[in-house]
Parts: sequence; C-alpha cells; structure tokens
Amino acid sequence: MRDFSGNHEALSINTATVRRQAPLDAIIEACARRDIRMISPWRDQVHAVGLARIAAQLRDTGITLSGYCRGGFFPAADRAGLAAALDDNRQAIDEAKTLGSPCLVLVVGSLPGALTGTPAYSDIGRARQEVFDGIAATLDHARACAMPLAIEPLHPMLAADRACINTLEHALDICDALDPARSGMLGVAADVYHIWWDAKLAAQIARAGPERLLALHVCDWLVPTCDLLNDRGMMGDGIIELRKIRGWMEEAGYAGAAEAEIFSDRWWQRPLAEVLDICIERHRSVV
Amino acid sequence: MRDFSGNHEALSINTATVRRQAPLDAIIEACARRDIRMISPWRDQVHAVGLARIAAQLRDTGITLSGYCRGGFFPAADRAGLAAALDDNRQAIDEAKTLGSPCLVLVVGSLPGALTGTPAYSDIGRARQEVFDGIAATLDHARACAMPLAIEPLHPMLAADRACINTLEHALDICDALDPARSGMLGVAADVYHIWWDAKLAAQIARAGPERLLALHVCDWLVPTCDLLNDRGMMGDGIIELRKIRGWMEEAGYAGAAEAEIFSDRWWQRPLAEVLDICIERHRSVV
Repeated sequence: MRDFSGNHEALSINTATVRRQAPLDAIIEACARRDIRMISPWRDQVHAVGLARIAAQLRDTGITLSGYCRGGFFPAADRAGLAAALDDNRQAIDEAKTLGSPCLVLVVGSLPGALTGTPAYSDIGRARQEVFDGIAATLDHARACAMPLAIEPLHPMLAADRACINTLEHALDICDALDPARSGMLGVAADVYHIWWDAKLAAQIARAGPERLLALHVCDWLVPTCDLLNDRGMMGDGIIELRKIRGWMEEAGYAGAAEAEIFSDRWWQRPLAEVLDICIERHRSVV
Repeated sequence: MRDFSGNHEALSINTATVRRQAPLDAIIEACARRDIRMISPWRDQVHAVGLARIAAQLRDTGITLSGYCRGGFFPAADRAGLAAALDDNRQAIDEAKTLGSPCLVLVVGSLPGALTGTPAYSDIGRARQEVFDGIAATLDHARACAMPLAIEPLHPMLAADRACINTLEHALDICDALDPARSGMLGVAADVYHIWWDAKLAAQIARAGPERLLALHVCDWLVPTCDLLNDRGMMGDGIIELRKIRGWMEEAGYAGAAEAEIFSDRWWQRPLAEVLDICIERHRSVV
C-alpha cells in the first residue's frame, strides 16, 4: 500500500469542495501554489470560466485531471428528453477530452423530475433500464474518443432523485454486460461516502480489478449526519475506514488519485486556502 | 394478490406512528374504535403504561400484535455492554411472549456510541460480527420461548448509528447461517422505506420465502426527504411502489399484515384520529 504521509502527489481536489469560495481559475491557481497536481472539476465550473481558458491554464500549470464531473442523468419522461440526455453526454465526453481527463464520471440519474420534487414516474425499474440504455449508447462515442466512462454508484439515500445505481455490485454488473472484454473504457468511480456501508464492499472492489477501478473519492461520514446531500465530513472527521478501503483498492490494482470531494455547507463557509491546506494535511495523515 | 380495497383487516398500526399524540392505551382504544385489528407497539410505549395493563387491554379489545419493537442493538464497546445487550434482548422476548406477538423485531445496532455522536470504534466489520454473535446467542432463548426473531435491515443512511445490516440479502445470509433448517424462528422484517431502492429486492424477497418473511412495514419515501430519520411519508405521498413490493411479498408466500410505520415530524403534529383514519384510507387505496 502506498505511503501518503511524505507528500501529496496522489491528492486530487474535486473542485466542488470549494465551489462557493472561488471560480475555477482561482481554485486552480490556489492548487498550483500548493503543488496539488490533480483536480476534478465540474462542468458548470468549467463553463463559467470557459473551456479553452481552463484547458490553457491546466497546460500552463501542469495540473492534470483525475476525472471530469459529470455525465449521466439519462432517464427522462419522454423520447425528446432521453435524446437530449444522450446529446449532453456526448458533449461532456468532448469536453473531458479537451481537458485531457482520464475519465468522465457518470451520475446516472433516476426518476425524472424527482430532483425538483415532481417525479414524472415512480418505476425505478424503468429508470434503471433507461440508464442501462443510456450508458450503452454513450459508450459508443466514449470508445470513439478513447474517453473511459466511470459509473459512480450513489448512496441509496439519493436513489429517488440522483442515481438509481446504488452499489458497486450493480455498477459492475452493468460494466460486465456492456464491456465484457474489460477494455478499460467502462468502469466505476468508487466514492467512499456512497459505498462505505456496503457489507459486500471488499468483495466487489476485488471483483472490479484495475480495468474497472477508475477513481477513488474520499471524504467522511459524520455522526450525526444532518443533511442528505451537503453534510459530508472532511477526511478523518467521521467513521469511514479510509485507509482500509484504500488498501482494498490498491490490492485490487488501483494506483490512481485519492480525490477529496466534500459537499458541505460547513466547509463551503471556510476560506479556500484553509480548506485546501487541511485537505493536504488529512490526505497525508488519514487517507 | 390480496385485495385491500374493501376492508382493513390486514392493516396494522405501528404505534410509533402516533407516539407523540397519545399514550399506548389511548392509541389502542382509538384503534379498537376503528376496527383496526392489529398493532405493533414499541417497548417504551408499553413500559410507560405497564406491560400487564397493555396485555389485559389487548385481550379485552381482541387486538393482536403484528410484531413487537424492538430487540437488537447488540454491539458494545466492552464485554459488559455486550452482556447487557443480551440480557435486554431476553427481556424483550419475554415481553413479546406476554403480549402474544408473532415476532420480535430486531434493529441490530452498529457502531456503539454513534447514536450520541461518540462512536467507541469505527470498524463496521467488528460491529457486524458482534451483531451476528448477538443474534446467535439470542436465538437460543427465542427458540425456547417459541418467539421468532425478525431482523430488520435498515436503510444504509442509518448504517453508522442504528443498524449495520442494510440489505435483505445481508439479513438473509445471517438467517441461512444461523437457521439453515428454516425453522420459522429467524427471519426478516421487510420495511419498504429501508429497502425499496435495492436493485436486488425482488430476488431477495423471493429467496426469503414464507418461513423468513415475518413482517411487512409500509410508509413512503418523499422527494425531497429533509431528515435522515423523521421525514417518512404517508403511504401514497412518495415514490415507493407499494403495491409492486407487496405483490412480490405475497408471491413469495407472505400473508401477514401491512404495518404502517411512519416516523415523521409532520405526522406527529396531526391529531391521532386523523392519522389513523388516513392510514385506513391509504391502506385501502394505495397499499
């Protein structure tokens, strides 16, 4: 298992962690000053500054991506909506390519309209079929662009509105169905926040293997947790066995970044510099 | 599949649904007036009125139990705590017997101390082993008393503090290990709120079969859900496919109650009579 205590070469900052503090170009600048070598930006952050400008800034600073957030949200109430989702995913792949990302992270979606409190239907089986079909269709363009797709299973508390794939097992079943050759073009993003609770976690990480393990996201689960979406903890502040899970990932052949992704109303209120410095410290001490 | 539209013979009220409105004896009286034939009370509610008095009231009204809530919370920081939990579970079995319950529901517990924000350890594997050992030990007394134990998998968002068994599959694995003969003395309580999201739900219900399916709890998942514990919806107000899941249960041989269990800061503020009347109406129309 890699020793993270001596440096933070393997640290990536998912830029949603500091999205309220600064625009993406300022975040990248702050990362460069701290010798943070990787980020994982969100599309809205990239669009706000401009794709070409961010691509140039990455080249200038030598910072690379550990992933690009995000494609997905495949289910829709009608054919037009399904087609629009596919268009948007092709666009996301092209942007990921421009930024030199090693993968496009997929938050697959679930009951259409549920995010705004008005689900168009409640048949989660239908949503799962639409997700499966959406990934299959998107995989063609991904292969053509050599841009791997990383399915991110989300926590079951987000199953109604954000993702109807909620376990590594389910994500890997889809990978096996659509990419039986393990081409490296379809895998998973393992975010500890979403999957730490799973009694089958170690076994499914081992099953995934290096061809499927495309990303490792870290943060922590607080007790108590006060919000379903925006109360994630800083690494070390909660009960997730970060080092144990990273150990399983590395045993299975994962050698990539540990990407800090903390959606938190508390951490969004602290200064950018402070949050980045603490991420570095915790990366070395507890991840 | 049974037709619930004509009457509410199969309705049970989990009395936590109206726990803030009235003491248990008043709840039982209100149920009797509405010809609700089953309840599932919580131990604290029984203790507050008195075990003997509740037992007598049940005999007088002819109301029976669909379950007794609850045993469990097996993990502990030390030997004394583990032993105390076993004592408490034996006591719960004896109370369930006195009340003529068909089963004792187990909320198995997880990281000890997490409920009060101070987990004694964070090794969920250890908690799972302590749960397994605790159920094994408790099963001896349960068999001696002919009181079936119903393991209730809780939603993964409650995995740190309330239950480290979070899927029907995990619960059934434990049943198979401890009761391979399917004696009827160890099974599961299937609460739709906790398990609706599971892509393996239909398959695991079928696997369980009639010997293992000891209870069906119903409520609904709201979009959005604003609290991890106390924002459950009334049946019909959310996105859970209640009738589909009940259909799977009945196909697998379940012929018991549909027990309405709604932890909700909203519903706890409405009058007892109104909540019971709406439960009856929704039982007939959407369950």
